[in-house]
Amino acid sequence: MIRAAIQGGTGYTALELMRILVRHPHVEVTVVTSRGETGPVSRVHPSLTGQVTVDFTNPTPDQIAEQADVCFCCLPHRASMDAIPALLAAGLKVIDLSADYRLSDPAVYEKWYGHVHTDPTRLGATVYGLPELYGPRIAGQSLIANPGCYTSTSILALAPLLTARMIQPTGIIIDAKSGVSGAGRTAKVETLYSECNESLSAYAIGTHRHTPEIEQVLSDVSGQRVEVIFTPHLTPMDRGIFATIYAVPTRPVQQEQVLEAMRTYYAGKPFVQVVEHLPKSKDVSGTNFCHLTARVVNGRIILLAVLDNLLKGASGVAVQNLNLLYDFDETTALV
Amino acid sequence: MIRAAIQGGTGYTALELMRILVRHPHVEVTVVTSRGETGPVSRVHPSLTGQVTVDFTNPTPDQIAEQADVCFCCLPHRASMDAIPALLAAGLKVIDLSADYRLSDPAVYEKWYGHVHTDPTRLGATVYGLPELYGPRIAGQSLIANPGCYTSTSILALAPLLTARMIQPTGIIIDAKSGVSGAGRTAKVETLYSECNESLSAYAIGTHRHTPEIEQVLSDVSGQRVEVIFTPHLTPMDRGIFATIYAVPTRPVQQEQVLEAMRTYYAGKPFVQVVEHLPKSKDVSGTNFCHLTARVVNGRIILLAVLDNLLKGASGVAVQNLNLLYDFDETTALV
Amino acid sequence: MIRAAIQGGTGYTALELMRILVRHPHVEVTVVTSRGETGPVSRVHPSLTGQVTVDFTNPTPDQIAEQADVCFCCLPHRASMDAIPALLAAGLKVIDLSADYRLSDPAVYEKWYGHVHTDPTRLGATVYGLPELYGPRIAGQSLIANPGCYTSTSILALAPLLTARMIQPTGIIIDAKSGVSGAGRTAKVETLYSECNESLSAYAIGTHRHTPEIEQVLSDVSGQRVEVIFTPHLTPMDRGIFATIYAVPTRPVQQEQVLEAMRTYYAGKPFVQVVEHLPKSKDVSGTNFCHLTARVVNGRIILLAVLDNLLKGASGVAVQNLNLLYDFDETTALV
Amino acid sequence: MIRAAIQGGTGYTALELMRILVRHPHVEVTVVTSRGETGPVSRVHPSLTGQVTVDFTNPTPDQIAEQADVCFCCLPHRASMDAIPALLAAGLKVIDLSADYRLSDPAVYEKWYGHVHTDPTRLGATVYGLPELYGPRIAGQSLIANPGCYTSTSILALAPLLTARMIQPTGIIIDAKSGVSGAGRTAKVETLYSECNESLSAYAIGTHRHTPEIEQVLSDVSGQRVEVIFTPHLTPMDRGIFATIYAVPTRPVQQEQVLEAMRTYYAGKPFVQVVEHLPKSKDVSGTNFCHLTARVVNGRIILLAVLDNLLKGASGVAVQNLNLLYDFDETTALV
Repeated sequence: MIRAAIQGGTGYTALELMRILVRHPHVEVTVVTSRGETGPVSRVHPSLTGQVTVDFTNPTPDQIAEQADVCFCCLPHRASMDAIPALLAAGLKVIDLSADYRLSDPAVYEKWYGHVHTDPTRLGATVYGLPELYGPRIAGQSLIANPGCYTSTSILALAPLLTARMIQPTGIIIDAKSGVSGAGRTAKVETLYSECNESLSAYAIGTHRHTPEIEQVLSDVSGQRVEVIFTPHLTPMDRGIFATIYAVPTRPVQQEQVLEAMRTYYAGKPFVQVVEHLPKSKDVSGTNFCHLTARVVNGRIILLAVLDNLLKGASGVAVQNLNLLYDFDETTALV
Repeated sequence: MIRAAIQGGTGYTALELMRILVRHPHVEVTVVTSRGETGPVSRVHPSLTGQVTVDFTNPTPDQIAEQADVCFCCLPHRASMDAIPALLAAGLKVIDLSADYRLSDPAVYEKWYGHVHTDPTRLGATVYGLPELYGPRIAGQSLIANPGCYTSTSILALAPLLTARMIQPTGIIIDAKSGVSGAGRTAKVETLYSECNESLSAYAIGTHRHTPEIEQVLSDVSGQRVEVIFTPHLTPMDRGIFATIYAVPTRPVQQEQVLEAMRTYYAGKPFVQVVEHLPKSKDVSGTNFCHLTARVVNGRIILLAVLDNLLKGASGVAVQNLNLLYDFDETTALV
Repeated sequence: MIRAAIQGGTGYTALELMRILVRHPHVEVTVVTSRGETGPVSRVHPSLTGQVTVDFTNPTPDQIAEQADVCFCCLPHRASMDAIPALLAAGLKVIDLSADYRLSDPAVYEKWYGHVHTDPTRLGATVYGLPELYGPRIAGQSLIANPGCYTSTSILALAPLLTARMIQPTGIIIDAKSGVSGAGRTAKVETLYSECNESLSAYAIGTHRHTPEIEQVLSDVSGQRVEVIFTPHLTPMDRGIFATIYAVPTRPVQQEQVLEAMRTYYAGKPFVQVVEHLPKSKDVSGTNFCHLTARVVNGRIILLAVLDNLLKGASGVAVQNLNLLYDFDETTALV
Repeated sequence: MIRAAIQGGTGYTALELMRILVRHPHVEVTVVTSRGETGPVSRVHPSLTGQVTVDFTNPTPDQIAEQADVCFCCLPHRASMDAIPALLAAGLKVIDLSADYRLSDPAVYEKWYGHVHTDPTRLGATVYGLPELYGPRIAGQSLIANPGCYTSTSILALAPLLTARMIQPTGIIIDAKSGVSGAGRTAKVETLYSECNESLSAYAIGTHRHTPEIEQVLSDVSGQRVEVIFTPHLTPMDRGIFATIYAVPTRPVQQEQVLEAMRTYYAGKPFVQVVEHLPKSKDVSGTNFCHLTARVVNGRIILLAVLDNLLKGASGVAVQNLNLLYDFDETTALV
């Protein structure tokens, strides 16, 4: 039985992790940390009543390591890189759900996050935890950088075509729409019900921090410099990412060829489904699946990708990474 | 042209007031106050772009009185009774949207609000601004206590039957459902989109502060001690109050008699419509109307009442009160 | 491996059944019927892509019996009683999700459903599939009448107190709020998005068919004639039932005594959680749990109950019944 | 007093027309037609209770002409061109909310709508009722083709830059998101609450009928052949269109220059507001306003446009056209 700790247990990704791990036959949640909360985790997350019985604690890294084998780090970026070196030093394996170890270049990190990275030597040396792309490299690791939600959606859609050189690597437009839960469980006027409901808006145009992450991974897997225009939107729904992606083909191409390239790329990957119909974000809501399709219109390729931002976009893929780390079946607790 | 000030201009009731007053042929908004905001009100309320061009200011009561004839006070309770005596002293008419002047007994206020009332002599002397019940007393006033949203819904449904002694005055059950905007534009975890969406919950059972307000007004208009059990619920919608009310008839009664009593009571009242169908909260959304109906089931009378919490339940009725105060047609800017 | 058929596979309860059964280690879905659809079930239910690979078929009862051991009947009432005798005759065990076998008296059925019951001898002889009340009687059955969603919510809240004679058996008020998925996947103007969104309404006041079902079961388990006033409401959310129930105690009682009676009644029942906080419908969304609590206000007992209408209120409890039928752990595939 | 008829009175655009016209000081609704409904219009549209007292009727064109001066035609396309020649022959002015008279070329109509146009001589001769572009030509007309909702949003955003030759006329990408009310008040599985809520989807990619309408009008006003890729999405909200538009500048350009070009183009147009912040669809919900802004990212111009699909996108602009037709102030009943 693997013992798992959750560092930063009050937010939505921690909640989803616990919901999944309750079903995992080989994992037990033994530690859930919080600096502000005490008492049963079900007091903050009443949906775990009768299912998760641990209390919030605020232990040192060594205390965590005494009670756990692996630590899911659900802290915000910056807090994450402050905590993780000590967790690793205490002997824990760490799956980091923040953005702190995703970028490989400290200078890029500093540019987009506005502060220096305090653990720069691990950047570049840390595997990017998108199993469909980097699965074989995950098994032996002690630290995994769990990917962002917009990022996974965009990368899963684009990787097959960029790798196959079917589309031009620059000028790619990613028009992405997210549910509100992606903004987290922090009190802010902008994410109040009455602000978001019956409203759709764009934000962080040209400045969203998932942009360099998308470009880095796609450049890496396709071996060319990839550049995207990324426009995120806030949509009145709890969950889901829907990405509509516009790319220019390098040569004339039929829809069926595009779909076939995607199918080939994801053969044997249980959580990516290339479909022929137009997917809805709800089709994958509450699941670890990503559904992809493509259309060719007026000489452009339009890619559509959907996933659940809290599952395949965060906590689901984190458990998928844990499964790979411990050589469990990749789908354990996830279907 | 009446010049209106809005004290506390960043919240939803202030926004709705401005939306209505833009259409009012006899009123001009000249002052909108805020302690925290400066610059154009449309920066906080972008829906007013091109329609309201005043800036937020933080004036003294005397400065307000120089620029305005009437002040809508949109402050929270407690802040309201701190501000209003000086506004009145400066010569302004005041329509108070808070709860501070609604209760007539300072002891009841202290019991339900948990602190002493600092302007107790005005309690009891202030008219309760529900025009359908107290319309004739509103005209000459300098201070009007604008009613609460749950309160108006409940009172409008029950007043005709209690006045006609058709139902027992105690044991009345009010099961009320509200949209989230009633919780205001303040950052709180409980009213985040991802907490409220796809969720329904009850709150403040037995302790909601609209309870004594309902009981006081219904006792006053019906001349008997009225007692209610009031259970508010938070519903995943922006706007609307839906009250389902269960009462015991004092004598056997037919549905048509109940409806007729309600129709008679509201004859000539433009904003209360007694309907035969089952109303939906959306039927009155965005309007100053209240729709009422009744059913008789197993010897109980079930009353249904709907209104828009921000309009007939707050800012709409505030303008209705202004119309009565200045002898404009009651419906001006409201249909 | 138990082979399961789903009769009437295009609706929401069938979809939820398949989602659950995909995870069930001892059950395989072998038949999904439809009169109108052909081809893969994932064409109608794209969320099952890659998970359920059977096609819709339209087999005879004998053909179903060749391929399956148990049949979940997801047909509308009336169609259900037309189909079930032949399914039973073919040797299948049947779990009926319609209302056709829930009432024990054919005359009551005829009164509330407006037509004669064509299989009256099975009424009364069929077990009511609410495992928390009738669990021990389920194991040996060939036909189980799966309960209604409003019904389960109401019964689970009231059974402990009625059985303990803590509340009066008549005059009970059930003010219930449901998500829209309860209305099914049939094209109707009333359940269009633009009709339901941002709206709350009551319907079928005094006439809803779950009323006699609630009264029958509560009378049966408590040994006295129980009578309720049941008011259902349509709420702008997909899923969830929230019941607010008002009862008169037979003797003065404290909140803690009420909670204790409920805890005792449900000791050892994994899916009913008696909680102290006020539950939200979202706390149990996507789960087979029911959360209950109680408050005492002004001499009334107020009970609050929440469950997911499609899971604990329909397909989840259906699988719970299957687990009992085949002596699997009651929680298999359900946590 | 102008007497207005509404042909096809049961849908959402008819409802919105009546809501607006109730406030119009110079217009009275005298006729509301329906083939299927009889009795008070408020029976179908309960939100009009006490405000609109006419009954549904099914009159001939001549009977309409006896009771009305102008007819808003709210029929579906095809039904519209069947009805309108007779309405015009009877002497009525007609504002057609369908798509039947928007395209100027019968061959284009036939290609996109799949059937022959039966009144082809009026195509091309009919003014396109987007007042900000064609205002001066509207006054003298007898027939106005009221524009589509996606169309108006896209055209209002793009017209200034295409006219100024600041962007390339081809390869323009319009990623548009709509509320569900745009799908109308017809029972369809796809627009059920439980299908649309918590879901986002794309539809009609490369085939949506607003595409030729956008291209035709933009080509006309800018004097060059304009070609767009138009991707509509269905969003879980009642109302609102949000268009995110990607264009390639013809020469390097700053954001402020783009905004200035838009401001200049719409100087003196009351309903188009060029804003500097990122607009939300809710900012214009319930209004006849369109808010526009622009950003420059990586050498692309990104335009954002929002309007209310039922108001500025349908019934609001229809009344704006009526105001121009009868020389009333353009904003009458619309602010």
